[in-house]
Amino acid sequence: MSVTGSLIVISGPSGTGKGTICKSLFQRRPDMFYSVSATTRPPRAGEVDGIHYHFLGKQLFAEMVERDEFLEWAEVYDNMYGTPKIPVTEALQKGRDVLLEIDVQGALKVKSKAPWGVYIFIVPPSLQILRSRIVSRGTDSMEVIDKRMAKALGELAHLHEYNYVIINDVLEDAVSKVESIINAEKCRSHRYQLFGNADVNQPLVTENVPE
Amino acid sequence: MSVTGSLIVISGPSGTGKGTICKSLFQRRPDMFYSVSATTRPPRAGEVDGIHYHFLGKQLFAEMVERDEFLEWAEVYDNMYGTPKIPVTEALQKGRDVLLEIDVQGALKVKSKAPWGVYIFIVPPSLQILRSRIVSRGTDSMEVIDKRMAKALGELAHLHEYNYVIINDVLEDAVSKVESIINAEKCRSHRYQLFGNADVNQPLVTENVPE
Repeated sequence: MSVTGSLIVISGPSGTGKGTICKSLFQRRPDMFYSVSATTRPPRAGEVDGIHYHFLGKQLFAEMVERDEFLEWAEVYDNMYGTPKIPVTEALQKGRDVLLEIDVQGALKVKSKAPWGVYIFIVPPSLQILRSRIVSRGTDSMEVIDKRMAKALGELAHLHEYNYVIINDVLEDAVSKVESIINAEKCRSHRYQLFGNADVNQPLVTENVPE
Repeated sequence: MSVTGSLIVISGPSGTGKGTICKSLFQRRPDMFYSVSATTRPPRAGEVDGIHYHFLGKQLFAEMVERDEFLEWAEVYDNMYGTPKIPVTEALQKGRDVLLEIDVQGALKVKSKAPWGVYIFIVPPSLQILRSRIVSRGTDSMEVIDKRMAKALGELAHLHEYNYVIINDVLEDAVSKVESIINAEKCRSHRYQLFGNADVNQPLVTENVPE
């Protein structure tokens, strides 16, 4: 039986802990394909090309945009960021589950191209906790913190454009919920079709390939 | 935050092992509410009223049908069988997950009344295995076995009216899949709404009550 990978998109406002959830998931599910973003910004200390980002020149990035080779891309403070389409598509075709960790704007762009993906929205337990998480990073001024909070509130309104919502209270619980979602999505009936062949020894159902 | 129970309906053709899955699930999830069917047939040796069935008189059963107190009911060989609505509704309102193990015809009737439920279709790995499972019960003549097989084939065509499909190959895997589905369904975004209150200490999202 051909098994087809699922595209799992983990998203949410900044400060909700989606990055920590994905790191923890990687410990439990090293077999998944973790999509690496491309960027034109220079690497920071400790960042490794191909692991933290694919560091690309502006010329190459622009050509890839031209060739529609990004699932989504955006310009942030003069730098380009994007999700390369080819590695994701190849992994899915090989039957691997793909994990995409991405901001809300990016996730909605990916959804417009891949509505058959599984979109998971990570939310903080409360605004107070979100604020304290942003503050505890210790890098932002009060003004920036207020801006981030306002942005988060706006992004939370997209909740119903996602398939699932996880309240990130206890990290391990949140990761277990992501795992349950991945397992359950493999059982969705739209992935299956009755096997036409009347051979009684054949599998009765097969899996569909997403469009 | 008010937590609302899920209605989990486990169904499939006779011989697919849905009963064994539900028994095993009960070991893992004793907190769930296991719906007990009502019947007008007399108890067999070892059957306990309220555990294996609610044994009712024909008069009472008819009155309950009249009062629309069954989620579904059917007449089989002069005996009535049905799923009492009130205990299911009460358990759901108390936030308990409810498990209903039921045949295909019954499941589709329940779905018409409770489309917000979670409908899981159990299928055998192959027709050959289904036949050997039916044969191994040792109670049926060849003619009855052929009838059961034909009925099963007809019922399998309802696969896409269910939300999920589980191929019952290895029992423990199948039970784990049911558990994942129960956990994942708690995260479906339609169950959540943004909390209007701007109090930063309040939960950001609350759960919806199914209609």
